[in-house]
Amino acid sequence: MTVRIDGETASAAMRVRAAQADVAAGVDELFERWLAVPADPRARLYEAMRHAAIAGGKRLRPLLVRAAGDLFHVDRALSLRVGAAVEAMHVYSLIHDDLPCMDDDDLRRGKPTVHRAFDEATAVLAGDSLHALAFEWLVDPATHSDPFVRSELVRELARAAGPAGMAGGQMMDLAAETADFDLPTVTRLQQLKTGALIAFSVEAGAILARIPPDGRIPLRGYARDIGLAFQIADDIMDVEGDEALAGKALHKDEAAGKATFVTLMGIERAREQAGLLVEQAIAHLSGYGDEAALLRAIAAYVVERDH
Amino acid sequence: MTVRIDGETASAAMRVRAAQADVAAGVDELFERWLAVPADPRARLYEAMRHAAIAGGKRLRPLLVRAAGDLFHVDRALSLRVGAAVEAMHVYSLIHDDLPCMDDDDLRRGKPTVHRAFDEATAVLAGDSLHALAFEWLVDPATHSDPFVRSELVRELARAAGPAGMAGGQMMDLAAETADFDLPTVTRLQQLKTGALIAFSVEAGAILARIPPDGRIPLRGYARDIGLAFQIADDIMDVEGDEALAGKALHKDEAAGKATFVTLMGIERAREQAGLLVEQAIAHLSGYGDEAALLRAIAAYVVERDH
Repeated sequence: MTVRIDGETASAAMRVRAAQADVAAGVDELFERWLAVPADPRARLYEAMRHAAIAGGKRLRPLLVRAAGDLFHVDRALSLRVGAAVEAMHVYSLIHDDLPCMDDDDLRRGKPTVHRAFDEATAVLAGDSLHALAFEWLVDPATHSDPFVRSELVRELARAAGPAGMAGGQMMDLAAETADFDLPTVTRLQQLKTGALIAFSVEAGAILARIPPDGRIPLRGYARDIGLAFQIADDIMDVEGDEALAGKALHKDEAAGKATFVTLMGIERAREQAGLLVEQAIAHLSGYGDEAALLRAIAAYVVERDH
Repeated sequence: MTVRIDGETASAAMRVRAAQADVAAGVDELFERWLAVPADPRARLYEAMRHAAIAGGKRLRPLLVRAAGDLFHVDRALSLRVGAAVEAMHVYSLIHDDLPCMDDDDLRRGKPTVHRAFDEATAVLAGDSLHALAFEWLVDPATHSDPFVRSELVRELARAAGPAGMAGGQMMDLAAETADFDLPTVTRLQQLKTGALIAFSVEAGAILARIPPDGRIPLRGYARDIGLAFQIADDIMDVEGDEALAGKALHKDEAAGKATFVTLMGIERAREQAGLLVEQAIAHLSGYGDEAALLRAIAAYVVERDH
């Protein structure tokens, strides 16, 4: 689906792709350094983390940290460190979500899932390790010289990851297979499961610039809207997408009889709603000028991607 | 086994038990408040966390935070908050270690393990949730008014939990079932698996009092020694212990053919070594007076416990 932004859709897409490539290279460089394999019996654990974390995915969350940081002229090396920490948190959640006792997936980002390439115990521990490392990297003095900023980042990330965020959303998602969820409940589920970490990524850029909570309100609105748009696009892709491009199994929600935005709204209304959310997300940024161009372009990108 | 402390073994044991009961009640009170069950589909997740976290275990780690905090006259409410956060981290590790793909245990602290009482997916997510909550609680301004102290606590706890700590030690422990580990490797394994979190607990008391790293050296020595003594006692209990008192399955290392302090040293030398470590731990505290009485008493307690 296509959403026009001031008639500049093509250049906006190019802008996203260029920033994305740059951020992806930077995140991989940090992971290479931070996940160096030790010469002891923990080598397998590090190999498993590297398998899941390096050279994979859209790096949407680090891209959002960078784009939000750009609004406030945050040093890009700092945005990148925080982005890599959020990405580690995201990767941990994918490893655990793919486990046989959860979604039981064999393929992720075009590669075998960690429990398939290694084993289940290693997958649990690789996820647990990335979870702890995300906080360790975030709170390192190299992330920001001000300990208040570091502790705020930890606080917001912990909330986004825990039972009032990602883990709680995954719990609701498991319940969705047997319960009959309505639209408000599915919305809440997705706000926790994917929305909380996306919101953290956007807000982190502002926290790095010491913007107080009041000043982050437009960004929060933006993040809420693109988070939902992203998930609606994901639900549409689950029905219409190409497994080879997606690098993971699709048509799973349908098979599980799970309520999604598509089953609840129909595919056409879902597509419309995603478009409206993108426009609304961009409207939240009306107080900013050119420095928000990347954030605006990302809003359109989250519903246009084919994987 | 009994270690005499200035001829006051009995009163030292009483001192430990009194502090332990007080700390346990305080930790349970915090968990009751922090883990209130929400009226939504995440209720089962919270029930699982409560099952594992409330009213169980020796609360050794919160007791150590309190005892170390007492050295520096740290407000006991603050020690307790940090203790509850460490205990949440410990409980998460127990939930994941008990999983079928790990140690496959049915019983923990005298109750069914989380994956037995609930299911595997809920157990993974309950562990993940407690992991995130430990950081959220730790970094809350209520834990300490100084953000530098909060960020230091997060940093040390993240290290103790991650691949260079607890998770790394568990990975080595899995490898121990097929590898032939020697005494230095088993020592390293245990320093990561149980030692790192015990060391954090002791050091946290000093961090709360803003004692710089140099000033924490005796406490680190103390923690290293009691951590190993604790693990040797655990290995002895695995051979000689009573399952009903322990509240978990024993004789598992033997069945798995795993190298432990007992298989490598023999039970008599292991017992001797534990006693020496306790004496050495207490010697590290020689610069302190009466304010270290509880820490001294705990050193003896870690090898005397029957569960």
